[in-house]
Amino acid sequence: MTDSQLLLSIAVLGGTGKEGKGLAYRWAKAGYHVFIGSRTPEKAEAAAKELLGLLEGEAHIEAMSNVDAARKANIVVLTVPYAAHKDTLESVKELLNGKLLIDVTVPLVPPKVASVQMPPAGSAAQEAKQILGDGVEVCAAFQNISYEHLLDNGSVECDVLVTGTSRDARAETIKLVEATGLNGWDAGPIENSVVVEGLTSVLIGINKKYGSTHAGIKITGASKQST
Amino acid sequence: MTDSQLLLSIAVLGGTGKEGKGLAYRWAKAGYHVFIGSRTPEKAEAAAKELLGLLEGEAHIEAMSNVDAARKANIVVLTVPYAAHKDTLESVKELLNGKLLIDVTVPLVPPKVASVQMPPAGSAAQEAKQILGDGVEVCAAFQNISYEHLLDNGSVECDVLVTGTSRDARAETIKLVEATGLNGWDAGPIENSVVVEGLTSVLIGINKKYGSTHAGIKITGASKQST
Repeated sequence: MTDSQLLLSIAVLGGTGKEGKGLAYRWAKAGYHVFIGSRTPEKAEAAAKELLGLLEGEAHIEAMSNVDAARKANIVVLTVPYAAHKDTLESVKELLNGKLLIDVTVPLVPPKVASVQMPPAGSAAQEAKQILGDGVEVCAAFQNISYEHLLDNGSVECDVLVTGTSRDARAETIKLVEATGLNGWDAGPIENSVVVEGLTSVLIGINKKYGSTHAGIKITGASKQST
Repeated sequence: MTDSQLLLSIAVLGGTGKEGKGLAYRWAKAGYHVFIGSRTPEKAEAAAKELLGLLEGEAHIEAMSNVDAARKANIVVLTVPYAAHKDTLESVKELLNGKLLIDVTVPLVPPKVASVQMPPAGSAAQEAKQILGDGVEVCAAFQNISYEHLLDNGSVECDVLVTGTSRDARAETIKLVEATGLNGWDAGPIENSVVVEGLTSVLIGINKKYGSTHAGIKITGASKQST
């Protein structure tokens, strides 16, 4: 991709939550043009203003509706709670043809958030693919990250496993992972998303059991040098 | 458990494969009484002899049939290929009442071993629980380990995620993980086994993609000191 990242724009749907704001901040800092989407325009405006403040105005961040953000961007990132997953996807479905959707959603089912409970499609990412159809590439990524450290420029001690509908889509997503300062790994086809999404429940359980707050994972025994 | 581990015996069903031999070796070395089970008595004898040789005779290792091993041991570990999973469990089912089964099986479906393909029960461990019924505790563990380094006393750069039917069963299994020199984490209820088993496909895919041979995982951001 070399310098072409400056030409790419990223929509962050649900970009007013902590996950979305953290990712939008990192991408804007890396030079991407970021559209913060929300169902509530004032919330999107407030989030964009906050992030522009943190970046001292040196960034391209615009606030808009989820629909406008999905229409304008080359790459669309979904960071809504699972309860809004299906409705949000259906509201932007027609606008995503030919684009890449990166699904950050974890299908947690309260109150048992430390138990893996996947939807009938197998995972949230597979559900997204079912809703969006053949014209859209879908990747899953960022489910296991603690978002607090994205905004304060801290290092995040957690690798990002990337699953998706094609090798090219995963490679594109891994570049966006690296742009946030994190380390991304190709974790295989979209069917493997159950591992990535389910790992969040495992990590929630580990935090509860061992008194930690930011349990994560690192891949060991492999190196990305040759890729 | 303090010193009581010397009273416990462990059956390793399918103990003549590389996974079973590696685990049997580490447990025998730690002082456990180990029964190597196999469908083929000569293979069990050969494996027991090999391990006793490595341990210079200073270990309790006996060779026998899977059925006899399951009958005699307090804890039964299943390390057969997935194709033999159901039949092996049904052959020892009546002997496991009141015991703990540790299922090491990964339900890989060749040729797509880097794609997560779980059985209808949700995972091999949940399938084992369905077959064995209420009288048996079932845990899943050790699916992500490279077994080569168990036999040569090398350090294994991979944590062990332990899921299971009760907190006590998981705690017991984690003690057995630690006895092998590895680091075990409580990864939650048996429903979470899809993550642990599926992670093996993700790691196989990472090995293939990045040219590694022993990709593993480590839990970061949490400590086991307080447990």
